[in-house]
Amino acid sequence: MSSTKERREELASKYFNCSLRERAVFEAGIKLGTIYHQFVGTPICTANVEILERAIEDGVKVQPFVKDVKVTIDRSALRKKRDEFDYQTLTGGMLEVVLIIQIGNVRAVAEMRYINELHYPLMYVREIIDL
Amino acid sequence: MSSTKERREELASKYFNCSLRERAVFEAGIKLGTIYHQFVGTPICTANVEILERAIEDGVKVQPFVKDVKVTIDRSALRKKRDEFDYQTLTGGMLEVVLIIQIGNVRAVAEMRYINELHYPLMYVREIIDL
Amino acid sequence: MSSTKERREELASKYFNCSLRERAVFEAGIKLGTIYHQFVGTPICTANVEILERAIEDGVKVQPFVKDVKVTIDRSALRKKRDEFDYQTLTGGMLEVVLIIQIGNVRAVAEMRYINELHYPLMYVREIIDL
Amino acid sequence: MSSTKERREELASKYFNCSLRERAVFEAGIKLGTIYHQFVGTPICTANVEILERAIEDGVKVQPFVKDVKVTIDRSALRKKRDEFDYQTLTGGMLEVVLIIQIGNVRAVAEMRYINELHYPLMYVREIIDL
Repeated sequence: MSSTKERREELASKYFNCSLRERAVFEAGIKLGTIYHQFVGTPICTANVEILERAIEDGVKVQPFVKDVKVTIDRSALRKKRDEFDYQTLTGGMLEVVLIIQIGNVRAVAEMRYINELHYPLMYVREIIDL
Repeated sequence: MSSTKERREELASKYFNCSLRERAVFEAGIKLGTIYHQFVGTPICTANVEILERAIEDGVKVQPFVKDVKVTIDRSALRKKRDEFDYQTLTGGMLEVVLIIQIGNVRAVAEMRYINELHYPLMYVREIIDL
Repeated sequence: MSSTKERREELASKYFNCSLRERAVFEAGIKLGTIYHQFVGTPICTANVEILERAIEDGVKVQPFVKDVKVTIDRSALRKKRDEFDYQTLTGGMLEVVLIIQIGNVRAVAEMRYINELHYPLMYVREIIDL
Repeated sequence: MSSTKERREELASKYFNCSLRERAVFEAGIKLGTIYHQFVGTPICTANVEILERAIEDGVKVQPFVKDVKVTIDRSALRKKRDEFDYQTLTGGMLEVVLIIQIGNVRAVAEMRYINELHYPLMYVREIIDL
């Protein structure tokens, strides 16, 4: 770890008035909000679904404290492009995300997915682990 | 509180494995990520800065658990439209947000603003209060 | 018209290899693409639908060559917020836009709206007028 | 070409009151507006720049009438991630796009790129070809 990195981390940390566990889930929330609101509306059909999944994952991974992320777009909602007008745009209900944030020795696992009994895509905290 | 609301709250809550404090800052993170990634890129000049501030605030307020939110766009970065091409698009560095989330008896105050010593817009947890 | 404005207009114009009519509909296309992809995904319910319509309009108006724009979000798709989770996000199908672009003595009228017989929101050129 | 495709094309076409050349540049404008406003704000550093370029291209290609598109993100504005906070978000000034739209026997070439003498990213029509 470079001293520049340490210094920036220290500078940023002093703005937080909460525990590491709380900060970890805060960072998780930011990333899930980012995914939803940056990418919903993107043109999509079966031809570009995989590259879009990877681009979303890679966009999240450049953000702070992301240990891992897995994005899956529901293919059942997609179809093969039959004519010029046959494309859709990404909706929240198509997204399934598993995200792992790590800060120090705390790891938070958060998820987003469409919940049938609620009729909407829920973002929630599955687990917080003290390593 | 209607029984439908209670039931939906209960249904959603069972997906969370964390404390109310942790859930409150998770929700705060979602909203800050939403603001940044939904609205950065919006065309802006002095003529529409106020309406955009209000539209962002009102968009956040319809999301769950938002007690209050104040969005300020830095006017010093804006200028009067002098010709057809003279407009900018909203950047993260122009945004200053104070957000209050409340779940049960826990209130979380989170902020986003450009931090000079860090050279980027930081999202952070200012305070968590047990009422 | 200031000489700075004239010079910028002239500088920009030299990049275009097309007629004024063609340029007018090109600018119209840009604005409709902007509206769809900037604002789809915005949190919405009956409480903020009017402010969002105005914010979209005002955001478009700061872009070059916009003579007028009218944005209407379909209320029939919206409902009153009944509980914390009861909100939606803006979709293309909810949007109805009438846009007027003017460059020199050419006026282009373009629209976007959900077309029942096509099952998707169509962007199209309604009319080009030589004034 | 399936008869369903022909019928949808015909249905859509009747909404347009303009020439094929005008429609081609209108479609080009839509796509450039889409690229700018869908993807500006996406987290980016050297690690994900290539996948993001491809994801933008593939997202555009699923839209109607896109013959080809090339997206280049300016690497000179990017840097290697040195610490957790070291990432940027995509701006319009980083984008260079060459887009080819074809409708019937008309081909329109449109571009977006940062123009130094104008100090902003310009979208313009480079050429319209009757094949």
